[in-house]
Amino acid sequence: MSEDHTPAEPPVAELANATLHDGGSTVMRAQFSQRVPIRSILCRPDGGAGLAGQKVTVGGWVKTGREQGKGTFAFLELNDGSCPANLQVIVDSSVADLGPLVPTGTCVSVSGELKTPPEGTKQKIELRVDKVIELGPVDPAKYPLPKTRLTLEFLRDFVHLRPRTNTISAVARIRNALAYATHTFFQQHGFLYIHTPIITTSDCEGAGEMFQVTTLISEVEKVEKELKENPPPSEADIEAAKLVVQEKGEAVKKLKSEKASKEVISAAVAVLNKAKEDLSKLEERAKLQPGLPKKDGKIDYSRDFFARQAFLTVSGQLQVESFACALSSVYTFGPTFRAEHSHTSRHLAEFWMVEPEIAFADLEDDMNCAEAYVKFLCQWLLDNCYDDMEFMAKNFDKGAIDRLKMVASTPFVRITYSEAVDVLKQVTDKKFENKVEWGIDLASEHERYLTEVKYKKPVIVYNYPKGIKAFYMKLNDDGKTVAAMDVLVPKVGELIGGSQREERYDVIQKRILDMGLPLEPYEWYLDLRRYGTVKHSGFGLGFERMILFATGIDNIRDVIPFPRYPGRADL
Amino acid sequence: MSEDHTPAEPPVAELANATLHDGGSTVMRAQFSQRVPIRSILCRPDGGAGLAGQKVTVGGWVKTGREQGKGTFAFLELNDGSCPANLQVIVDSSVADLGPLVPTGTCVSVSGELKTPPEGTKQKIELRVDKVIELGPVDPAKYPLPKTRLTLEFLRDFVHLRPRTNTISAVARIRNALAYATHTFFQQHGFLYIHTPIITTSDCEGAGEMFQVTTLISEVEKVEKELKENPPPSEADIEAAKLVVQEKGEAVKKLKSEKASKEVISAAVAVLNKAKEDLSKLEERAKLQPGLPKKDGKIDYSRDFFARQAFLTVSGQLQVESFACALSSVYTFGPTFRAEHSHTSRHLAEFWMVEPEIAFADLEDDMNCAEAYVKFLCQWLLDNCYDDMEFMAKNFDKGAIDRLKMVASTPFVRITYSEAVDVLKQVTDKKFENKVEWGIDLASEHERYLTEVKYKKPVIVYNYPKGIKAFYMKLNDDGKTVAAMDVLVPKVGELIGGSQREERYDVIQKRILDMGLPLEPYEWYLDLRRYGTVKHSGFGLGFERMILFATGIDNIRDVIPFPRYPGRADL
Repeated sequence: MSEDHTPAEPPVAELANATLHDGGSTVMRAQFSQRVPIRSILCRPDGGAGLAGQKVTVGGWVKTGREQGKGTFAFLELNDGSCPANLQVIVDSSVADLGPLVPTGTCVSVSGELKTPPEGTKQKIELRVDKVIELGPVDPAKYPLPKTRLTLEFLRDFVHLRPRTNTISAVARIRNALAYATHTFFQQHGFLYIHTPIITTSDCEGAGEMFQVTTLISEVEKVEKELKENPPPSEADIEAAKLVVQEKGEAVKKLKSEKASKEVISAAVAVLNKAKEDLSKLEERAKLQPGLPKKDGKIDYSRDFFARQAFLTVSGQLQVESFACALSSVYTFGPTFRAEHSHTSRHLAEFWMVEPEIAFADLEDDMNCAEAYVKFLCQWLLDNCYDDMEFMAKNFDKGAIDRLKMVASTPFVRITYSEAVDVLKQVTDKKFENKVEWGIDLASEHERYLTEVKYKKPVIVYNYPKGIKAFYMKLNDDGKTVAAMDVLVPKVGELIGGSQREERYDVIQKRILDMGLPLEPYEWYLDLRRYGTVKHSGFGLGFERMILFATGIDNIRDVIPFPRYPGRADL
Repeated sequence: MSEDHTPAEPPVAELANATLHDGGSTVMRAQFSQRVPIRSILCRPDGGAGLAGQKVTVGGWVKTGREQGKGTFAFLELNDGSCPANLQVIVDSSVADLGPLVPTGTCVSVSGELKTPPEGTKQKIELRVDKVIELGPVDPAKYPLPKTRLTLEFLRDFVHLRPRTNTISAVARIRNALAYATHTFFQQHGFLYIHTPIITTSDCEGAGEMFQVTTLISEVEKVEKELKENPPPSEADIEAAKLVVQEKGEAVKKLKSEKASKEVISAAVAVLNKAKEDLSKLEERAKLQPGLPKKDGKIDYSRDFFARQAFLTVSGQLQVESFACALSSVYTFGPTFRAEHSHTSRHLAEFWMVEPEIAFADLEDDMNCAEAYVKFLCQWLLDNCYDDMEFMAKNFDKGAIDRLKMVASTPFVRITYSEAVDVLKQVTDKKFENKVEWGIDLASEHERYLTEVKYKKPVIVYNYPKGIKAFYMKLNDDGKTVAAMDVLVPKVGELIGGSQREERYDVIQKRILDMGLPLEPYEWYLDLRRYGTVKHSGFGLGFERMILFATGIDNIRDVIPFPRYPGRADL
C-alpha cells in the first residue's frame, strides 16, 4: 500500500486492515490524514527495523531539534501524539533551510525513506528526509513551552498548548483508553449506554452545591441595557398619554353627535386609535423592570427557559434507574457538576462519571460488577497503553505498573463497615486525625489505611449505617444499615460508591420523609416502585479518580483536558 | 454453565465468553444480574429451539398477560429490554396466584424449563415456570401506560416510564449501538477521544443563544432571604451605633486622663471594642444589597463561581482543535446546548454531537472521513440491530432498512456549492419557498431536494460562500469561498457540517476582525496558528439527527432519553 495521499473511494472496505499494529514490511497510512502515524512505525515488535527502505510521509511537532555537522544536517525528534515515542528524523541542508525546522514546537510534514541507523544508536529506525512538505514555524523567543522541564502547575495556564507535552499527551492517551475500555466492558456484558440529562430539574437535595442553568440573566442584561438607552416613561408621561386618549375620544364623540361626515369621523377615529396605541406602548414599557423578574417576592422562574429552575446534574443515577427498570442492564458515562468551593487536588467543578445500573441485581452482583470492571480497566491499560504506563512509572509513580498488575489479578477484600470499624479501632501503628467509631463516615485517612496499609489491595466496604447514606439505598433487615458499598484502592482511596436501591415503595417513601425531603419532586422516582418495581443495584465511578489511580498523577486538574474549579474555566 | 445465581469469583476470566450470540445448547447467564437475558434465548439463529430442556431464570416486564383454561394457567409475553422480542412464559395456577401476574407493566422474575411449543405456534421456544421468584405488581387502574397503542406525544409526559414501550426501547438500543459504533470507528482509525468542556468561557459569538451557568442567583436568593428575615440596618441605626462608639471612646479617654486604675480602663476599652465590633457588623450588613451584584452599572461576574461569565458549550470544536494540534487525530462526543426558543421537531436545547478533528488533513480527507463514518454507522446497525430496524421499518418508516443499505453501499455524490446552486436553479418540477441564488444559505427544502429527489443518495456539498460560514473555515484561493462541506442525507437533510480550518495566522486574524468579532477571547485559538500551525480539518455530526435518519422517527424529542426544549426539562 502506497503512503502517498491519493484520495479515492471511501475506505470502508479497508477498515478491517486499519489496525496500526501491523507487523509486516509495509507501513500503514492514516486513512483520513496525509501521513503515516509514528505509532505504526515505532510501536511494532521490531521497533520499526523491518520497515527500512520504505518511503513514508510523517507529520508532527518537533520535541528537540539540533543542527549538526557544522549546519550540514539536522536531527529532529518528531512526535505526532499517536504514541509517546519520537521518530528520529534527519534533514540535510540541501533539502531545506534547517534554521526554521529545529525550534521546539515546530510543526513539520516531511517525506523520505526509513533507514536503519548506524550501529550503536538506540533507535531501530530513522527517517532520512527528501522533502519538507509543510512547515508551521515557531519563534523560540515567544513560544510559551520551551524545552526545559515545566511543572504541571505552570502548564495549567496553557491548557491549549499543554497537550504537546509528554505528560499531558500520555494522560490523554490513557484517558482515551480507559473511556473506550469502559464502553467495551459494558457493551460486552449487554449493558446499554444511556445519555442521562445534563440539565436537570430533579436533583433537589443540595441546590446550594449545584450550578444553575438560566437565560434570566441575559434577559435582565438586555432589559437594563434597553432601559439605559431609552429610559422608561414616567407616571406623568403616562398620565399625559391618557389625557390625549380622552381628548381624542371626546373629539370623536363630538363629531358623531354633530353627525359629521364619515370621512371626518373615521379620520378622527384613526387619530384616537393612534393615541391608544401610543398609550399601550408606554404602559408596556413602564412594566419593564431592572433586575430579575419577581412574583410574590420570589424570582419568577416561569419566565426562565424551562419555565422552572434548572441545574446542572450532579449524577445521572436517578434518571438512569428509569431505564434500568425497563431495559435491565444500562450505564451512563457523562459529565457531572458540583459548585463546591473546593480548592483541593481531588475536586473539580466539572468531572466525568461512569454509572451502571442493573435490574435483578443485589449488592453482591453490584460488587462483582464493580470488581470486574476495575480489573478490566487495569488489564486494558497493561494490554494497550504499556508504553504510556512506562512513561508514568518512570516520571511520576514507580509503582504504577505493579499497581495495575496487582489490581487486575488480586481478588478484592470484602468487609462490612462494622468489620472495617473494628479493624480501624485496633490500629496502633498510626494515629488518625478523625476518631473511629460505629456510625461515622470513614475519612480518607481511614480508607487509605485499609487499602494501602492493612490489606495492601483493593477493599470493598459494604453495609454502611443508614444515617450517613442517601435515602435511595436499600434498608437491610437489621434496620440499622443500608446495602451500600465503596470500593477503596491504593493511591486514591474511594474509587467507586454504589448500592442496592430500595425498591419497596413504602420503605423508600418513609425514608424520603424521614430525611425531611419533599415527596413531590420524587413522585416520578416513586412511580418506578409503584408500577412493576424490581430489585436493582448500581454504582458510580469517578472517571478522573480512576485516571489518578492509573497514572500516579497527584492533581486531578492535570488528568482532565479542561479543568474547571473555583475562579477558573479557561477556554 | 448453570443459570443459578452463585456469586463467586469475579468473572474477569470469563469475559471472552460473554457474548450473547452463543449458539450452543446451553444458555448464558447475565453476569451481574440474576437472570438469563431474553436476547440470549431468542436471538439465536434457531430462535431458541436448541435450548429446549434447559432450566433458566428470566426477569422482565409483562407486555401482555392473559389467564386461560378457566384460570388454570396464564400466558405472559415477557420483555427485559435486551431485544425487541418477548419470551412467551406459561405459569400454572398451581405455581402462583395468576391475577397479579398478568397486568401490563408487572415485573416478574421466574424460573422454569424451556420447552418446545406445540406445533403451529409462531414461537420457537417457551418457558414453563416452576417458580415465581419476585413480583413487582401493577394496579392496572392506575398504571399510566395501558396496553392500548399510545402516541409518542402522549409518552413525552412520562419520560420515566416510556422506556418500557416497544418504540422507545428500540430507539434506546439503536442509540446505544450508534454510540458504540462511533467510538469503535474512531478508535479503529487511531483517533483519541477527548472530553471537551461543557462549561465554557470561550464561545463568545452568540451569547444570546447560550445558557448561562452561574451561582449568582442562588447567592441573590440567600441574601434576599436573609434580608427578609433580618432587615438591614437603617442609616439611623448606624448613626446610633457610631454615637455609641464615640461615647465609649470618650469614656475611655476620660478615664485615662483621670489616671483610673488599669482594671477600670481595660474594662472600658473592652466596652469600646464591643461597640466598634457592633458598628462594623452593622456596616457590613448595610452593604448587603438585594439583586444581582453590580459594579460600574454592570453585573459583577467577578463574584460568580468562575470569576467570569460562563456558558454551556455550543460545540467542542474550538477546544478540540488544541488537541488535534498536538495529538493529530482526535474526536469529541458529548452534549451541546442551544438556548433557542425553537419549538420544531428538529431542535433540542440539549443534544449530542460527534466532532472529529484531524491534523495533516484537508477538505477531501475530511469528506472521506465523514463518508466512511456514516457508512460504518449504517452497516453497524444492519449487523447489530436488525431486529430493532425491522420494528422501525414495520411501524415508522417502510424504507428505513433499504435506506441504511443504500447509504452503506453507495458512493456519496460530491458537488460544489456553485454546482448545487446551478442544479437547483434549473429545477422545474418543484417550487421552492426560498429563492435560490449564489450566496444564499441552502434551506432545508433545497438540501432535501438534492439528496431525495435529484440524486436519491447522500450528497456532499462543498466550497460554500465565505459570507455564510464561520470565521474559522479555510479561505479558498478564489477569495470568495471557504473549504466547508455539508453532508446531506435523505429523510433529515443536513447530517454533518464540517470544514478545513484556516491555519494561516494572518488570514484567520483578519477574518475575525472582518466579522466584527473581538480578538481577545480568541488569542488562545490564534496561538494554535502562531506556534507550530498545521493544516487540519474536522466536522460535526448531530447525533440525534443520525438517529432520526436511521429510525425514521419524526420528532427529535423521541430519540433522546430526556428531551429538553422551551418550557420542558422533566426529571
